[in-house]
Amino acid sequence: MPPSIMWCIRWAVYLSFILALIPRSRGSTLNCHKMCICASNIVSCSKMNLTMVPSELPKYTSVLDISFNEITGLRAQWTRHKLPNLHNLLLSHNGLSFISSDAFIFVQELRYLDLSSNKLRQLDEFIFEPLTHLEVLLLYNNQISQIDRTAFSGLNSLQKLYLSQNQVSRFPLELVKDKSRLDKLSLLDLSSNRIKVLPIQDLQPLPAWIKNGLYFHNNTLICDCELYSLMAHWYIRRLNSAVDFKDEHTCVHPSPDKRVLRLYDLNTHMNCSTFKETDQEAYLEQTLTLSCDTKQRNMTKTWMLPGNIIVPSDRNQSDTSNAKFVSNGTLEIKSILPEDSGVYTCFAVSEYFNETLYVVVRVHNYTINGNSETLNTAYTTLVGCLASVVLVLIYLYLTPCRCFCCPDQGKKNQHEDSIHSSMLSATPTHEDMATKAELNRHVAFIDSKDLQGQNGKVNPNGDEEVDEEAMQGKGKRKKSVADSISSVFSDTPIVV
Amino acid sequence: MPPSIMWCIRWAVYLSFILALIPRSRGSTLNCHKMCICASNIVSCSKMNLTMVPSELPKYTSVLDISFNEITGLRAQWTRHKLPNLHNLLLSHNGLSFISSDAFIFVQELRYLDLSSNKLRQLDEFIFEPLTHLEVLLLYNNQISQIDRTAFSGLNSLQKLYLSQNQVSRFPLELVKDKSRLDKLSLLDLSSNRIKVLPIQDLQPLPAWIKNGLYFHNNTLICDCELYSLMAHWYIRRLNSAVDFKDEHTCVHPSPDKRVLRLYDLNTHMNCSTFKETDQEAYLEQTLTLSCDTKQRNMTKTWMLPGNIIVPSDRNQSDTSNAKFVSNGTLEIKSILPEDSGVYTCFAVSEYFNETLYVVVRVHNYTINGNSETLNTAYTTLVGCLASVVLVLIYLYLTPCRCFCCPDQGKKNQHEDSIHSSMLSATPTHEDMATKAELNRHVAFIDSKDLQGQNGKVNPNGDEEVDEEAMQGKGKRKKSVADSISSVFSDTPIVV
Repeated sequence: MPPSIMWCIRWAVYLSFILALIPRSRGSTLNCHKMCICASNIVSCSKMNLTMVPSELPKYTSVLDISFNEITGLRAQWTRHKLPNLHNLLLSHNGLSFISSDAFIFVQELRYLDLSSNKLRQLDEFIFEPLTHLEVLLLYNNQISQIDRTAFSGLNSLQKLYLSQNQVSRFPLELVKDKSRLDKLSLLDLSSNRIKVLPIQDLQPLPAWIKNGLYFHNNTLICDCELYSLMAHWYIRRLNSAVDFKDEHTCVHPSPDKRVLRLYDLNTHMNCSTFKETDQEAYLEQTLTLSCDTKQRNMTKTWMLPGNIIVPSDRNQSDTSNAKFVSNGTLEIKSILPEDSGVYTCFAVSEYFNETLYVVVRVHNYTINGNSETLNTAYTTLVGCLASVVLVLIYLYLTPCRCFCCPDQGKKNQHEDSIHSSMLSATPTHEDMATKAELNRHVAFIDSKDLQGQNGKVNPNGDEEVDEEAMQGKGKRKKSVADSISSVFSDTPIVV
Repeated sequence: MPPSIMWCIRWAVYLSFILALIPRSRGSTLNCHKMCICASNIVSCSKMNLTMVPSELPKYTSVLDISFNEITGLRAQWTRHKLPNLHNLLLSHNGLSFISSDAFIFVQELRYLDLSSNKLRQLDEFIFEPLTHLEVLLLYNNQISQIDRTAFSGLNSLQKLYLSQNQVSRFPLELVKDKSRLDKLSLLDLSSNRIKVLPIQDLQPLPAWIKNGLYFHNNTLICDCELYSLMAHWYIRRLNSAVDFKDEHTCVHPSPDKRVLRLYDLNTHMNCSTFKETDQEAYLEQTLTLSCDTKQRNMTKTWMLPGNIIVPSDRNQSDTSNAKFVSNGTLEIKSILPEDSGVYTCFAVSEYFNETLYVVVRVHNYTINGNSETLNTAYTTLVGCLASVVLVLIYLYLTPCRCFCCPDQGKKNQHEDSIHSSMLSATPTHEDMATKAELNRHVAFIDSKDLQGQNGKVNPNGDEEVDEEAMQGKGKRKKSVADSISSVFSDTPIVV
């Protein structure tokens, strides 16, 4: 064998020996007995003086507890492979000050992440984005002062976010409002931070189930009557965030001495007007929607009308009242009337919690445009009266009578006409033709087709208005005086 | 003022002063800053060198973490009032060796209880009974050797029970079987204990979703071929408890040297027969029920028949096949036939997990009682033949003819009748009365309405069998001899 071939074989043997010495990372698993306690799918390595997350965690790991260690940073490669079953990751009490933006790409099934009691200073953009299933995120007792507006983007399943005991100075309104809102978030703890101003106008219209879990006690809020009203309302509604921490809701008086005051005493210190829950007001014929604004989400709701009448929640069920149960739990009252005023009750039920809400409804007996109905009637009556007077005067003094054509009769009939002028009858006479012929007045009536006047009133006797008198050139007093006055516009006779 | 009154007043002042000094227990709350970290409804007092649970916990507490302390016993009065919101209680790493039987009466809403890494030695009767909402109970890494059979009674919501790393020697079968079974328990970790014998016969028929979470690796099980078969089956089904801890499923060889063997190699060491999953067998006309035995509970299931035909899960939907989807996810096949043999597929879907199960069905072409169907047909044919022969003989030699009444004609017709006797027609004649009168034979036929005989067969040629030959007084062979014999029982004419 030539020496070159021998040399090749020797090198191949060396190489294979070296390769055999390299540890096989794939498939090797954590040695539980050394540094962790393993109980089926739980791996607990708490208080083991670890400076790094143990490598090669078993793929079936469901709970990983690495709390009370000395891990200062969570690198992108802290786990080398996907952990598809990891639901709980506990990293509290570690002195963590750095989290890689790729730290969570291999643990996308996480539901509970505990990063509390560490030394985090900021939350970078999109840092938790892969955690679309995360439900609870604990970040309390860190040193967080900066939160990027996109830091919590992607946390579409997040229900509870604890940011208490940090150095947050901006209220992260994007979490509860607008498009970036986390849909399922029902607890946001911002207590014991450095927030000075609350976006009160944006918080007020939020549903009660969000406000119920919106904790912001022990901040450095500046005292303000608007803030007092907000908290007084929350307290009356018995929202947990207000009631549970009543004594810890304080604010700093804007005076130079910067006194710290209790929010609930603010009305005495700052002369704020006493807060009173207002009734729900409605106007005649309006459609009113009452929302059952419960402290918890997804409750089964039932409405009761003032007379203790249960509103059927089944749409198919026949219902005689004007109140209708809408699928999202609200009550819709159509064409509301003053007699619909009263206390409406909403009973809300869930697995662990029941709630009863009362809504006092007061219905005004006029429409939303004020006393317009009453005013309109008065107005038309007034105009009608004035018009009547004007017409009477015209009739008296400016009668378009053809007196000039027949001067003798004109003088004789002038007095008769003046007497009859106040009786502006629309009705034709019912006398027989013979008696009509005795009179010598010229009155022309509007044709029955033209009787529908400006207010749509049709003279019911229109058909009978056969103007035979006019044909004979004689005038005569009409039968119904009262009728003729009320129908002044529609049926005014034109005397020719 | 008399001295007695002065004395009274003095005592009243003293008394009120003493009363004022007594601390008011009601309403006072825990001072979070001293010994705990409080974040809204979380109270975390871990690693604070506490020897007792802090008193006067706030009523709103939802999570209470007292892990890594020095609390050695959980007395009945560890909390003085109800904690209606407490869901998580963490007491791990405390050196707990005693739990009062009344320890949990004030925390009945608990869902997660961590008592792991303590020094518990036994679990007394009804100790966890008040915890009807408890879902997860961690008891791993204790020194538990005795578990009362009623220790876990009342835990009706329990889903996960971790008893790993204790000294348990008895398999607590009552937790998964029989009346005392915990209905929702889907994970029971008994790994790393001292169990020597498994109740294999009781474990085998359990549903897969229970076996999937039944961990018993790292015990001191005695090697056995039955145990090998059990585990081999679990491994083929890819049950988590078997697959995830394949290398830790060991047993002790019953030989004096007490070798520890891997359970999966047992067939080679102990000559156990190789395990093979058996097909589902069925017999002709049998009703077969196939269960979709999934690894997870409450999955949405769909069945597919051998020819890739989806079985409609909606009962109202018209279905031509004999396979029916039963509401609990099983498939019912009625009157099964050999052509129904094949692979039946169940697709199971849940929020986090999908599973496909294959069931191989083999249908024998005979009923469950052997070749009984074939035998029955042969039997009835034979009986039929014999009966026919007997009847023919009776007819030939023992005809109940009234020959004695009309001796002349009787002799003449005797031959004709004997020929017609083999043509047992069921049809009446349709000739007019005149032609009938020519004949002097008295034959009464069964009415056509009565033609459906005991085997439900109607003679289809009934209408055509106009017996004209009989009318002419001549005997002649009938059209369908074979037919008439086959209907021997149903259509026998009564000759009167």
